[in-house]
Amino acid sequence: MDEFALINRWFTGIGPKLPEVVAGVGDDCALLQLQPGEQLAISVDTSVVDRHFPAQADPWAIGWRALAVALSDLAAMAARPLGFTLAVTLPQVDETWLDAFSQGLRALADQTRCPLIGGDTTRGPLSFSVQVHGAVDAQHVWRRSGARAGDVIALLGPVGLANAGLRSLLEQPERGSSRQQWSLAEQAYMLPRPLIREALRLMQGCRIHAAIDVSDGLLADLQHLLAASALAAELDTESLVLAPELIAQLGEVEALEAALQGGDDYALILALDEQDFDLARNLCPGLQQIGRCVPGAGIRTPQGRVLEPRGYNHFAMTSAGYS
Amino acid sequence: MDEFALINRWFTGIGPKLPEVVAGVGDDCALLQLQPGEQLAISVDTSVVDRHFPAQADPWAIGWRALAVALSDLAAMAARPLGFTLAVTLPQVDETWLDAFSQGLRALADQTRCPLIGGDTTRGPLSFSVQVHGAVDAQHVWRRSGARAGDVIALLGPVGLANAGLRSLLEQPERGSSRQQWSLAEQAYMLPRPLIREALRLMQGCRIHAAIDVSDGLLADLQHLLAASALAAELDTESLVLAPELIAQLGEVEALEAALQGGDDYALILALDEQDFDLARNLCPGLQQIGRCVPGAGIRTPQGRVLEPRGYNHFAMTSAGYS
Repeated sequence: MDEFALINRWFTGIGPKLPEVVAGVGDDCALLQLQPGEQLAISVDTSVVDRHFPAQADPWAIGWRALAVALSDLAAMAARPLGFTLAVTLPQVDETWLDAFSQGLRALADQTRCPLIGGDTTRGPLSFSVQVHGAVDAQHVWRRSGARAGDVIALLGPVGLANAGLRSLLEQPERGSSRQQWSLAEQAYMLPRPLIREALRLMQGCRIHAAIDVSDGLLADLQHLLAASALAAELDTESLVLAPELIAQLGEVEALEAALQGGDDYALILALDEQDFDLARNLCPGLQQIGRCVPGAGIRTPQGRVLEPRGYNHFAMTSAGYS
Repeated sequence: MDEFALINRWFTGIGPKLPEVVAGVGDDCALLQLQPGEQLAISVDTSVVDRHFPAQADPWAIGWRALAVALSDLAAMAARPLGFTLAVTLPQVDETWLDAFSQGLRALADQTRCPLIGGDTTRGPLSFSVQVHGAVDAQHVWRRSGARAGDVIALLGPVGLANAGLRSLLEQPERGSSRQQWSLAEQAYMLPRPLIREALRLMQGCRIHAAIDVSDGLLADLQHLLAASALAAELDTESLVLAPELIAQLGEVEALEAALQGGDDYALILALDEQDFDLARNLCPGLQQIGRCVPGAGIRTPQGRVLEPRGYNHFAMTSAGYS
């Protein structure tokens, strides 16, 4: 099978046709059209076999996850998806695998209205780079740097659950091969849901000062937001609502640790004015207040205990793990 | 060394600061601003070790080449560079290697005024995905589909030379490690120059109906342009000007074959009205007329001999080679 046949069979017609996509797959470049007052938001994420997912993982989920982690960055800036590119490196052409992989991509591309608009196909060790493109309203784009002292810190989406799922997939890698038997925690790791719709609803309905998505860990990513905004935070860890499945799997102490330090959930951390919180929670009922921005640096509990982000990063990693 | 330190040390401040880049490295997404009447052109290219470059190749050239092959797609649409993202997968942190790699990137980023605006860093087998972003004038963008019967087919840049360079690097891989000793052909393969300035000059100064860059081979890429424009071409292979170094290395017959079928030169094929050709050549003195668009399908010589593109593609490849 040649490269063009491969693209035609598995990587054409993924996601809806959007009027903003003037040219998609099939010319030297894809072309995107913005509306007046809009800026283009872009983000790229790479997924490498045995680093971000087990080699034997369900290919449907690998496709979903590769796109999901990139789309989460659009959610973190309240960007409306316009399209994604896929640079895929494959060791060989495995038709069954590619069928499932492209269906996983397609499912999320349809759900988030984010079509595939271009890419590159090469042969080599299995990996993908997904780059997403979105339109932001230049007046209402969410930056990390916009938080203010006194802002409520709010969390949308679960934290810790993906980390629990990762632990069980590392312990029993063979469980990864069939998504039908995954626990909620394993689903949280392998099939994260980027909070695009929620972000757009919040952006349109109330005023968010700053946002970031939780990819490295709640403390680590909150610390990025605080550093960009030159602020500290009081984080009320005792009021943090944890998923029952997380507590059941890890016990209360470890569950809280996973929620604070584990990554890969793709929840959203938001900073907003206290008086806007109820409105925001009406728009997104799962929203929980977890703390408050204060002058200074670092993250502390209301009792004054310092919370140190451990987070995850690829080149400091010492233990085995996917992330 | 952690991921953030790595980005700070090697992948920050590459290329000029452009006013269109509202946010670069350091938030969830990069943000680009277009002018009224502009569209965004994007293209992504992946380079994999031992597939697109020898493992021992000069890292300065690997950096240059990874960016160059992507920028060539912007040239093919007459897009003004706005910035690039780099998704880099590294087996380990080799400081000497990263110094040279990032300097090669930087040299071309400065020369083409295309800053690094974002990326992702992971650990794994050496590979890069470079995505470039450019602004096109929506009225003057070059598409593959715009050629008309009667148009002159013109070629800008060398063809075949990179293929000759590839052959000598495959025969003597150890030559790849130091760019100081490369022949012109080896330079053509490892250090292609994307024709950004020339494309912008032509776009502003005369009317080009269609364009494509030569990455797969002159015949293969011309065939892509013809298919998109629903045309055939008469290609005057006897008048094709070949580089003396190409003939010296391969002999006349093989040199012509390399020029027609070899890829990786990143020359530009243009279709334009005959009466505009002299003007275009005044703007870009190296421009040569190589044929003409005619009704029908396929590529023939003026004597009627059919020229079949062989081209290159990753999943049909049977022999070893970088591309």
